[in-house]
Amino acid sequence: MPNHNIDHDREKRIGFPEVIYGERKSTEDLFEIIKSFTEKDRNVLITKLQKDKATDLLKTYSNAFYDTTSGVFILKPIKELQGEIQVGIVSAGTSDIHVVNEAFYTLSYMGINAIKINDVGVAGIHRLLNKVEELKLYKILIVIAGFEGALPTAVGGLLPQPIIAVPTDVGYGVAKGGHVALNAMLSSCANGISVVNINNGYGAAMSALRILNLINN
Amino acid sequence: MPNHNIDHDREKRIGFPEVIYGERKSTEDLFEIIKSFTEKDRNVLITKLQKDKATDLLKTYSNAFYDTTSGVFILKPIKELQGEIQVGIVSAGTSDIHVVNEAFYTLSYMGINAIKINDVGVAGIHRLLNKVEELKLYKILIVIAGFEGALPTAVGGLLPQPIIAVPTDVGYGVAKGGHVALNAMLSSCANGISVVNINNGYGAAMSALRILNLINN
Amino acid sequence: MPNHNIDHDREKRIGFPEVIYGERKSTEDLFEIIKSFTEKDRNVLITKLQKDKATDLLKTYSNAFYDTTSGVFILKPIKELQGEIQVGIVSAGTSDIHVVNEAFYTLSYMGINAIKINDVGVAGIHRLLNKVEELKLYKILIVIAGFEGALPTAVGGLLPQPIIAVPTDVGYGVAKGGHVALNAMLSSCANGISVVNINNGYGAAMSALRILNLINN
Amino acid sequence: MPNHNIDHDREKRIGFPEVIYGERKSTEDLFEIIKSFTEKDRNVLITKLQKDKATDLLKTYSNAFYDTTSGVFILKPIKELQGEIQVGIVSAGTSDIHVVNEAFYTLSYMGINAIKINDVGVAGIHRLLNKVEELKLYKILIVIAGFEGALPTAVGGLLPQPIIAVPTDVGYGVAKGGHVALNAMLSSCANGISVVNINNGYGAAMSALRILNLINN
Amino acid sequence: MPNHNIDHDREKRIGFPEVIYGERKSTEDLFEIIKSFTEKDRNVLITKLQKDKATDLLKTYSNAFYDTTSGVFILKPIKELQGEIQVGIVSAGTSDIHVVNEAFYTLSYMGINAIKINDVGVAGIHRLLNKVEELKLYKILIVIAGFEGALPTAVGGLLPQPIIAVPTDVGYGVAKGGHVALNAMLSSCANGISVVNINNGYGAAMSALRILNLINN
Amino acid sequence: MPNHNIDHDREKRIGFPEVIYGERKSTEDLFEIIKSFTEKDRNVLITKLQKDKATDLLKTYSNAFYDTTSGVFILKPIKELQGEIQVGIVSAGTSDIHVVNEAFYTLSYMGINAIKINDVGVAGIHRLLNKVEELKLYKILIVIAGFEGALPTAVGGLLPQPIIAVPTDVGYGVAKGGHVALNAMLSSCANGISVVNINNGYGAAMSALRILNLINN
Amino acid sequence: MPNHNIDHDREKRIGFPEVIYGERKSTEDLFEIIKSFTEKDRNVLITKLQKDKATDLLKTYSNAFYDTTSGVFILKPIKELQGEIQVGIVSAGTSDIHVVNEAFYTLSYMGINAIKINDVGVAGIHRLLNKVEELKLYKILIVIAGFEGALPTAVGGLLPQPIIAVPTDVGYGVAKGGHVALNAMLSSCANGISVVNINNGYGAAMSALRILNLINN
Amino acid sequence: MPNHNIDHDREKRIGFPEVIYGERKSTEDLFEIIKSFTEKDRNVLITKLQKDKATDLLKTYSNAFYDTTSGVFILKPIKELQGEIQVGIVSAGTSDIHVVNEAFYTLSYMGINAIKINDVGVAGIHRLLNKVEELKLYKILIVIAGFEGALPTAVGGLLPQPIIAVPTDVGYGVAKGGHVALNAMLSSCANGISVVNINNGYGAAMSALRILNLINN
Repeated sequence: MPNHNIDHDREKRIGFPEVIYGERKSTEDLFEIIKSFTEKDRNVLITKLQKDKATDLLKTYSNAFYDTTSGVFILKPIKELQGEIQVGIVSAGTSDIHVVNEAFYTLSYMGINAIKINDVGVAGIHRLLNKVEELKLYKILIVIAGFEGALPTAVGGLLPQPIIAVPTDVGYGVAKGGHVALNAMLSSCANGISVVNINNGYGAAMSALRILNLINN
Repeated sequence: MPNHNIDHDREKRIGFPEVIYGERKSTEDLFEIIKSFTEKDRNVLITKLQKDKATDLLKTYSNAFYDTTSGVFILKPIKELQGEIQVGIVSAGTSDIHVVNEAFYTLSYMGINAIKINDVGVAGIHRLLNKVEELKLYKILIVIAGFEGALPTAVGGLLPQPIIAVPTDVGYGVAKGGHVALNAMLSSCANGISVVNINNGYGAAMSALRILNLINN
Repeated sequence: MPNHNIDHDREKRIGFPEVIYGERKSTEDLFEIIKSFTEKDRNVLITKLQKDKATDLLKTYSNAFYDTTSGVFILKPIKELQGEIQVGIVSAGTSDIHVVNEAFYTLSYMGINAIKINDVGVAGIHRLLNKVEELKLYKILIVIAGFEGALPTAVGGLLPQPIIAVPTDVGYGVAKGGHVALNAMLSSCANGISVVNINNGYGAAMSALRILNLINN
Repeated sequence: MPNHNIDHDREKRIGFPEVIYGERKSTEDLFEIIKSFTEKDRNVLITKLQKDKATDLLKTYSNAFYDTTSGVFILKPIKELQGEIQVGIVSAGTSDIHVVNEAFYTLSYMGINAIKINDVGVAGIHRLLNKVEELKLYKILIVIAGFEGALPTAVGGLLPQPIIAVPTDVGYGVAKGGHVALNAMLSSCANGISVVNINNGYGAAMSALRILNLINN
Repeated sequence: MPNHNIDHDREKRIGFPEVIYGERKSTEDLFEIIKSFTEKDRNVLITKLQKDKATDLLKTYSNAFYDTTSGVFILKPIKELQGEIQVGIVSAGTSDIHVVNEAFYTLSYMGINAIKINDVGVAGIHRLLNKVEELKLYKILIVIAGFEGALPTAVGGLLPQPIIAVPTDVGYGVAKGGHVALNAMLSSCANGISVVNINNGYGAAMSALRILNLINN
Repeated sequence: MPNHNIDHDREKRIGFPEVIYGERKSTEDLFEIIKSFTEKDRNVLITKLQKDKATDLLKTYSNAFYDTTSGVFILKPIKELQGEIQVGIVSAGTSDIHVVNEAFYTLSYMGINAIKINDVGVAGIHRLLNKVEELKLYKILIVIAGFEGALPTAVGGLLPQPIIAVPTDVGYGVAKGGHVALNAMLSSCANGISVVNINNGYGAAMSALRILNLINN
Repeated sequence: MPNHNIDHDREKRIGFPEVIYGERKSTEDLFEIIKSFTEKDRNVLITKLQKDKATDLLKTYSNAFYDTTSGVFILKPIKELQGEIQVGIVSAGTSDIHVVNEAFYTLSYMGINAIKINDVGVAGIHRLLNKVEELKLYKILIVIAGFEGALPTAVGGLLPQPIIAVPTDVGYGVAKGGHVALNAMLSSCANGISVVNINNGYGAAMSALRILNLINN
Repeated sequence: MPNHNIDHDREKRIGFPEVIYGERKSTEDLFEIIKSFTEKDRNVLITKLQKDKATDLLKTYSNAFYDTTSGVFILKPIKELQGEIQVGIVSAGTSDIHVVNEAFYTLSYMGINAIKINDVGVAGIHRLLNKVEELKLYKILIVIAGFEGALPTAVGGLLPQPIIAVPTDVGYGVAKGGHVALNAMLSSCANGISVVNINNGYGAAMSALRILNLINN
């Protein structure tokens, strides 16, 4: 009895294929899972994959893409990047880059063009104010922050698009692990911001994809 | 110096006006705030308004709408309901109705047609499976549950639309206050579900509105 | 053996007298404590005093001041208000007024002129930006917010003064009780903000007083 | 005075012998404890044994069984596997395999035939629905899941047997450590599901054994 | 669109009918739900029903049974009590009686004979030791405790049957709300104890029923 | 089957009789329990008894003692007060008096002379320093505090006796419920302080009694 | 300005000298602190000292005692062991030995004879019942347990002495870190048990010492 | 698009430049950020920089200052130390030195003279009392403690200056991570103490700087 049972119908059902959470799977299980994808000519996205396991996979799949910062592993995107930039990924600090990249590369895998606007945290609000006109251009905003997680509130008060807030685990003391940022985002006084799990750049990208699929259908 | 300072530009900036959180404001402050709206010929939505304060307001504003279950108070919607149903509000149990109604009446206030699909929790999964074809018809799904909060995961695995999950405070023991449902939704294995605060039916409606505004613009 | 043992030397030692925390004391104990103050010709400040107990005290001390919103009870201030405004009390929303008033009346009791700048939360950042020039005029800023508690971060990034952040218990779901606002303030990316306990408007005022005493000595 | 004091009467009293929790014992203590078992001709089960300590034990007890994934160490089962499959071990994802195996090998040690049905999480509910007929065949279901822990609710709504739910520590952000899965299982709307500690595959197996002993006596 | 959607197939599917959680439903919704049951000639069990709502229901359904202590409301049991005592309900203290009764009356509703053995907490262990022979007679033990929740551990070390542990919300300080008892039961060193949510006497009864249905089929 | 099962041997076994926790028992159960004591000519101590239930009991047992502040109810002490003062009960503030009294009256019930030294909190350390010589006279110190719970640390650094620290639920914001005081006492840098549950004045008295029994035997 | 400032008067004041918490001090600081003790001909006890730092210290102080299991480091006890056994150290499992040893060696350092009674947890209650007569011989009982921490409750119900309960960090899932054991001990239904911090064997020993000093003076 | 976007206007706006949080930034990002500072002839302060990354930076910037204990990295202070001592940094124990140093070196970087008064914890209160006269000399007191965090309360009751309390992560059991010290400081009965995040020596220094800038302007 195998350790896995891939949901290969998912794409037909909900518009995107099953994606593999790599953090707690053994290399052996990952090889078997990849095989079950490639045997059906399917592309593969693995998230939160540690470097040592990625190194092993890259020996076999040498043309795969792996981003060390985020742990995203891609065995051929499902679509080439298409059209203009649709998603703005806004982050509060340089330390949030691991989550920024997870969102960015997940969108790439799905063929969605995105742009990163890094290090515009609320402690220097003018950095955000300077970007407001640019941010109006994108259909969806993914807003990423650790520590006190105030950025989505500021963005949400300034801009009308769908906003997906992503807390990161960046911070120390009470902010350790990202729960303060998460709870601040959930409690935001700005209207209509929705939130995903701590460090879940992948989930934010998929949430954006559901919206983009709605527009395109 | 007044106790309030209404953000009357918000609609121009982000597509919808400021809304009043009623739970912790005194009746005196609420009367003043309503006046500052009506003086500008603006409509008013108050959320989480307790019955005793609503009764006082209704004496003055007798044509206002007030829903006891959810605490929503509306002094004339900003738009009449338009077109076909755009949002499906799916809930796990009859006890979640206070949050269902907050989402429903907020959408009404904004002119958005929605439908309630109540009591389709995962413990009797066939109730949800029976609704899948109907649910495919709506642009956005707001999925509401207390206790273990499993419904958004099931919905998210079956349907492709944007899904906004709302945990409720229904439950006892470890589930008291709604944190289990919230955390279960944030941890969902289903892809691309986004979440708002416990009991935040209003926030879910506004998140849906941001998406609908994107489609219509 | 009495239930109390007032620290009547405190003023000499640290520049201000003992203040009474009223919330958990019986009316009997409060009467005795007030008597121990008045016998020494001392003035009295009681904080977080519930209305029913205040009503009893006011029957005996009819010239005392009592603010229902904050629960501050004053039996003659220790100093008349002096000079120009020294402290700006900035708050995010109308619902935070109970904490605003506790800070304001505590400062009054100590003879310090303060001003309230209410309802300038981050969800409408322009409301704060409009006040920046005014806020530069005050020596110290007390910044009060519930929900996600983002306001001190924005203020701290815009203004150079000492900033004392006060979280309030305004919010629901994860924000219930004020812990999110507290933790957000402690985690703030803005530099050099210090924080007091949830709803502790009194403590913020005393912290301001220590700074003002330093300047004046 | 030795560091241990084995309860060698336990089997007579409650139908199964004492089992050793290996995680926090030194190799020295483990050797002494094993000796106290083997001197009485008793078999040994150690749970949650780290690889380095297992390696040391295997040098002396080379015919023992050790499963690296779960940390189960067995020095001869107490009974050979008997009869048909009695327990179905159902798990939500490949990452839960360490807990699946702990339950599986504990049952093996006790002579109970079990079967693993892996990777049937609620995000692809059809995978579970496809297994319902098979699952009806087993007397008891052990249902294992991390993240949002929704699987036992779905199983409990579809099947009539005793269901023992086991949360795992698989997840990140709010799901880190398994508390979300645990609390979701405790809050389940499905009726009559009982729960054991996070990662406690061993406890689930023993709970099943108590039921099976009841049937067989 | 009604607020409820009863799962009337549940009995056929899993061996017992849907039961109503009364705590958070309005009297209006409860009347409608009862009607949807009685129209199909079904019996009704409502749990955690507050006295004021029960009083309203009893005006219409005067032959219903209502236990104030536990909040159980029964409109005709689904089976008469049958045969000998099958379940022993053991509790640590007199204060736990609200949960004892919920388990007891739920079992009654299902036609299962049970017995209460109250006030045998571990602080006077001889009280439990005196009952061991009696307890051996029952097929299943439901063990209920608040405060430190030690009773299931002691019972589990002395007796071989299936043991379902139920924490109660009885306690103060750190024990307030029942989380200590819950966690102690989940962490029990005794083998094979399974646990349900705090105060979930109903769930323990249903868990027992699943086991008894297994034996009788 | 009665709801209670009193441990009437306890006194013989451990030197003091069973005591009744009144908070969660019904008046009916309390009457029955008192009867089971008085039938054996035993005295009765009930703790944390609410005023309304006490009023009912006092109608029948009009010579009983009841302290409203602490909820202690005594139906004749087991011993008259004897000899000199043995226990000093030191508290940080007037608001802690409910716990002070619970300890004081429990000791009285056991025949132990104690003295209250109230309102000597660390914020005015000289109040404690002034009492050091007096405190040296008592065999045991029970030290009671809410808020930051610093008093036991200061006492423990100044005095050599056994010190039993009792946190109270006095405080607001993060201190609400007494967990900060509890944890501060458990973390104390002062040596050899032991701690009981929040508000557990009764437990502190019993802990003192165990020590005094040791000295007297 | 040195990093330390030893309280060399402590012994005179409270009957025992300052002890060094080694876990978070650098080796350099430890060397300086030891020197400040030895220069005054004082003996040294360091607790929770990691092996690598102990190895460095032992190079200089080769006649010091170091116990790897508990991290206790002793540079000559302050008294030789005297008289008969005064303290019984009772523990629930072999895995608790690190805390048992910390208590044992701290008492040794103070010249107090103690005995270890290991592995008598409540899951096999007869192991404890077999020891009751022996335990009656000791003046004070230190009772140590991890997981559900039930042992002090059982001991407290059987024996009259002062009981100092010590939770350990042994356990997994909800029991991880020892908070369940701690809270269970604080909530114990057994009377007059006092508690120290998780893993604080040292504190338990010092608490015992305060009692023994009381007896001997 | 770079990973950073430095707020080079901050000094003009609020009186001090942006400072770099080093803990979660890659060495590559740090090099780029330093370059963006040095290109503008700006000085650099990095906090919480791990040793391995510091070693890499020091290879390029060999004249930089790095303190291993606190992780402070300074590429030329922005001002030379000026005038007399303005800030007293008081700490409870030798183990708190990593936070003491972060505050000390941050102040140095800003040109502020400070002094360390270490190891004056409340368990030996005379150590603090001996320093009161000295402490009166400094304008501002930064008070640092782990474990029960009582020191700021004692200092705040004795001295009139602005007091900035800093909890540290020193402690074990319930004190692990510093939350007890933090909450104790927030709950302090001493008046007007303000608090920063756990281990945030940097924030305390900046808070002091805001006050000193106020005095000097």
